[in-house]
Amino acid sequence: MSAHDALEVIIAKRDGQELSDSQIDWVIDAYTRGDVADEQMSSLAMAILLNGMNRREISRWTGAMIASGERMDFSALSRPTADKHSTGGVGDKITLPLAPLVAACGVAVPQLSGRGLGHTGGTLDKLESIPGWRAALSNNEMLDQLEQVGAVICAAGDGLAPADKKLYALRDVTGTVEAIPLIASSIMSKKIAEGTGSLVLDVKVGTGAFMKDLERARELAETMVALGTDAGVHTVALLTDMSTPLGRTAGNAVEVAESVEVLAGGGPADVVELTLALAREMLAGAGRDDVDPAEVLASGRAMDAWRSMISAQGGDPDAALPQARHSHEVLAPRSGVLTRLDAMAVGLAAWRLGAGRARKEDPVQAGAGVVWHARPGDEVTEGSPLMTLLTDDEARLDRALASLEGGYDIGDATSYTPTPLVLDRVSS
Amino acid sequence: MSAHDALEVIIAKRDGQELSDSQIDWVIDAYTRGDVADEQMSSLAMAILLNGMNRREISRWTGAMIASGERMDFSALSRPTADKHSTGGVGDKITLPLAPLVAACGVAVPQLSGRGLGHTGGTLDKLESIPGWRAALSNNEMLDQLEQVGAVICAAGDGLAPADKKLYALRDVTGTVEAIPLIASSIMSKKIAEGTGSLVLDVKVGTGAFMKDLERARELAETMVALGTDAGVHTVALLTDMSTPLGRTAGNAVEVAESVEVLAGGGPADVVELTLALAREMLAGAGRDDVDPAEVLASGRAMDAWRSMISAQGGDPDAALPQARHSHEVLAPRSGVLTRLDAMAVGLAAWRLGAGRARKEDPVQAGAGVVWHARPGDEVTEGSPLMTLLTDDEARLDRALASLEGGYDIGDATSYTPTPLVLDRVSS
Repeated sequence: MSAHDALEVIIAKRDGQELSDSQIDWVIDAYTRGDVADEQMSSLAMAILLNGMNRREISRWTGAMIASGERMDFSALSRPTADKHSTGGVGDKITLPLAPLVAACGVAVPQLSGRGLGHTGGTLDKLESIPGWRAALSNNEMLDQLEQVGAVICAAGDGLAPADKKLYALRDVTGTVEAIPLIASSIMSKKIAEGTGSLVLDVKVGTGAFMKDLERARELAETMVALGTDAGVHTVALLTDMSTPLGRTAGNAVEVAESVEVLAGGGPADVVELTLALAREMLAGAGRDDVDPAEVLASGRAMDAWRSMISAQGGDPDAALPQARHSHEVLAPRSGVLTRLDAMAVGLAAWRLGAGRARKEDPVQAGAGVVWHARPGDEVTEGSPLMTLLTDDEARLDRALASLEGGYDIGDATSYTPTPLVLDRVSS
Repeated sequence: MSAHDALEVIIAKRDGQELSDSQIDWVIDAYTRGDVADEQMSSLAMAILLNGMNRREISRWTGAMIASGERMDFSALSRPTADKHSTGGVGDKITLPLAPLVAACGVAVPQLSGRGLGHTGGTLDKLESIPGWRAALSNNEMLDQLEQVGAVICAAGDGLAPADKKLYALRDVTGTVEAIPLIASSIMSKKIAEGTGSLVLDVKVGTGAFMKDLERARELAETMVALGTDAGVHTVALLTDMSTPLGRTAGNAVEVAESVEVLAGGGPADVVELTLALAREMLAGAGRDDVDPAEVLASGRAMDAWRSMISAQGGDPDAALPQARHSHEVLAPRSGVLTRLDAMAVGLAAWRLGAGRARKEDPVQAGAGVVWHARPGDEVTEGSPLMTLLTDDEARLDRALASLEGGYDIGDATSYTPTPLVLDRVSS
């Protein structure tokens, strides 16, 4: 690796130049080793945010982050693999029914997930509300479970893309999260290092999503699809609406319960729709578009896979889920049609009730969250329950209620325009 | 002071917003206290570099840096005060003859100076080549000397604008030095905190200067003049050429010797011209434009003030100056007129010979440097000495010679165009 120095790389990007392959390889490696200081990487990150990177630079940056750690290998499995990544939404429990559904269709799902930070929940936090379930698996346990059960949802080990882990923590405190090249390379370095054969990205758009507008979301989706394709991973992205929260619940145990409803053949229509849409993409990516996931869901085989997946990680699929100590009903202030339910307002409320964390080291409440009894388009009656707020800590109610102010509208049927859930599809 | 947080301030500037007074006060104070981390300040500095600050923001930023430390007060002195600041050039020894000259004209000169880093020398490094001379004075010693001698050149204490000191060190390693708002506020916070009544800025322009083009230099000059004026300091800037090095020497002892020649009534014409131009501005700023500095220089009174100033700080004005152990002549490769002598090439050569330092903690060689025997416009003869390189360490010669390659041109008289030394003047 040729010799560079941090200032040279920072100044090149600051002055609007392209970084060379060797500058990128050097800076990622040197940062991982601690030879480039945090304050140098943060000014570089700000220069990247403001001046951008082209496709070659982003691809090389991603490759350098992958090279900073280990790569997993699922090629010895008897079936193809497919993975899904969501950029994060409110009530986004889709991974929970999706992974066992796709496994029941004959495709292995190695789903490395994270914990939640901020107003969107984390998949591991949700599953940890199931008594006994554990997120940490060794690589061998993961491979065994993929072979036996076909689906695993577990915590990513520290060995994958350590440069990304370090850089992500830095970006979080330096105002440099919102750079598409850095978001795309962060997500894709982990997914590519994870060794999946195909990948479906669920890029959320709207008030409750990281990307508020369709154009930015499309740019992110296109960047990630290109990165996956360049790395030989079959990659497709769906752009999906996150102005309205998904389903009827946001929290931990309440989202597990809703997921089990979907696996049992019920559940909210939008959760079922998105689960099937993503399952079809995963199956197609893995070369199994001969299987109809709707049929497999109806057959109960996805539920069987769920129960096996939970049991394999120590969880009791039949155990009662934790319940919050306090509940508070929000009543409809008038009769009419619910014309808007804002995903960010609901997400913040659930977070403030204790379902999410403000800092990485904070615990979450398994029972906390928000359940809404009407979805946009539904009729509501003045004085009837519109939402139920759940928390172990009654003192949290006031701030949660405050975040819901202005978070929904009740009008008449003529003022409601339904929006599609899947907004667009991006492939290479 | 109202509560802000680092992310809010970084994101505001990143997204092109103006920072409020209270955001600026908060972030400078919190950074000085360590509540804003280096990696946060560096991403903010990069956002400022790329997105700018307006006059109000820069003025407030400067004020907040002044407020981070102590302010000096010269109002008890029996005469007015004037100070000079140069943005740094090659062979720029002007402070050495200028301070005693202005003192001899009846205006006190409290000159807080720094050490050199990179290709431009530091005033304190030059004076430290005088046996016995010491740069560190207490505030009381400084006041006494100003009253008795009228001029003092000493190291700035740690108490002035500590926020600037911390920020400057950070900018140096994070590629954020080249931001006009940050350069201007860094210089002016120290100069305003120093308590001078009037200030003349020598803003260098050209290959050997920090500012390579006139427009950027003018922007910096206008910004600093506005900051000084806003703070009640009479401030004027001269834009002066730094494509050609000043005088005939670059180094430490060699520049002291050249300064003494000027004080003795001789010395290179350009050094005399700039010394007198800056002296006239300082005298005018202090309300003493009735005095002609050329007359005072010719009278020998400036030399008397120099001797008193050096003696007062322990130096022996009559001692022999240190000489380098090795010297090497660079011969003119052809006969003709020297049409160009590049300030950066000469500055780098002097630095590589040992006159400057690469790191703050490095020592400098008192005797090292470059003496050039012709200035642009002068005739030279093939084979006669064009420059003399001086160093204690012969191994440094090769790299110094390499930096001089392409650093000068010899042509005929028709290909030489003299350029003025003082390019422009900026006042409020």
